[in-house]
Amino acid sequence: MENYEELFPFWTKLTDTEKSLIENSVYVEKYNKGMLMHRTEDSCKGLITVLHGQLRTYILSEEGREITLFRVNDEEVCVLSASCLMDTITFDVLIEATEDTEVLVLPAVMLNQVMEKNSYVELFLYKRATEKFSDVMWTMQQILFLKIDQRVAQFLWDEMVQKNSTTLSLTHDEIARYIGSAREVVTKVLKYMVKEGALELRRGTLIVLDKDMLRNFM
Amino acid sequence: MENYEELFPFWTKLTDTEKSLIENSVYVEKYNKGMLMHRTEDSCKGLITVLHGQLRTYILSEEGREITLFRVNDEEVCVLSASCLMDTITFDVLIEATEDTEVLVLPAVMLNQVMEKNSYVELFLYKRATEKFSDVMWTMQQILFLKIDQRVAQFLWDEMVQKNSTTLSLTHDEIARYIGSAREVVTKVLKYMVKEGALELRRGTLIVLDKDMLRNFM
Repeated sequence: MENYEELFPFWTKLTDTEKSLIENSVYVEKYNKGMLMHRTEDSCKGLITVLHGQLRTYILSEEGREITLFRVNDEEVCVLSASCLMDTITFDVLIEATEDTEVLVLPAVMLNQVMEKNSYVELFLYKRATEKFSDVMWTMQQILFLKIDQRVAQFLWDEMVQKNSTTLSLTHDEIARYIGSAREVVTKVLKYMVKEGALELRRGTLIVLDKDMLRNFM
Repeated sequence: MENYEELFPFWTKLTDTEKSLIENSVYVEKYNKGMLMHRTEDSCKGLITVLHGQLRTYILSEEGREITLFRVNDEEVCVLSASCLMDTITFDVLIEATEDTEVLVLPAVMLNQVMEKNSYVELFLYKRATEKFSDVMWTMQQILFLKIDQRVAQFLWDEMVQKNSTTLSLTHDEIARYIGSAREVVTKVLKYMVKEGALELRRGTLIVLDKDMLRNFM
């Protein structure tokens, strides 16, 4: 059993009936790396919490260009999969598993029922949505105002910290999608960083040789 | 006196004490066209409602490039001036009056007191913030995915509809700031639209001659 109290701060504000309503309808789903969990045309699944793995939320232009908005890690909530429960959310996103991922689903229909009577649940959803607003603002400023070499360096730094390793399994194409750029541009930046001695490139892998130098690009 | 019930859907959920707390601390402020109402380093003013006029919310890069996030019109709430009351909002913005503007201010200190006891007020703030999240997503998609001529046409179309006039008082520089582009680029696009017969340009004024043609650029 999951620790609901830890995952959902509204848990202590629920009645016993509401608690069992949730406990009886909650389920676990697994996604393999690369699987699309949510498409723009999909119906609304509900509130999703990542148990293990990682989700990537992104938008897609008509020409197929991807912009990563934010990623969702262990014990974090992916609130945009429950956007149908919030009538002030009028945009749509795609959600993909970037690793083998296990999620906990609180189905939308059930959650809607609980929300109608309990404003703490509603407040929880809107708060988490506003958190993602902050993430998106950060992403937007990165895209609009940072130069491409800074964005690549910032991304590699974050990856290095998150994976706690200087060896990163990433293709140039993946980096380009994460930072909202083109593969050709990323390849050019990475080659420059290799020439300067900050990185070493191998097939599908990238090794950070000089952390200080990488930081200087940021 | 303002009609609080109409402006604030949480009004009917307040106790009499909370109502008089608000009524006794609310005040009206006036800003001339072009005045900055909120800087990033400013302390948090509170919840602002536009009574007459218009506010523009934007972000600024280190090199001084502006990106307009959204505009706030009559009877709309500018929730980001109350961002200190929402701990999930971690970014900062600038807010400017684009016309002579009158606003109603619910001071942050007082609102914080009411919020602590009344979750409807908190929910109202977060809902309005999420609405702005949707606006920003729309803006971001415009900037990232639409070509510049489409963005100019879309902007002029929206202005024409909002002002209910085909004569628009706008400089090239203003248009560039609204759509997050450079003045030189906007001038080029406008000249092309003039050549095609969609627009006529006069000093500081722009006349839409052919609505259908403008729409075709979108």
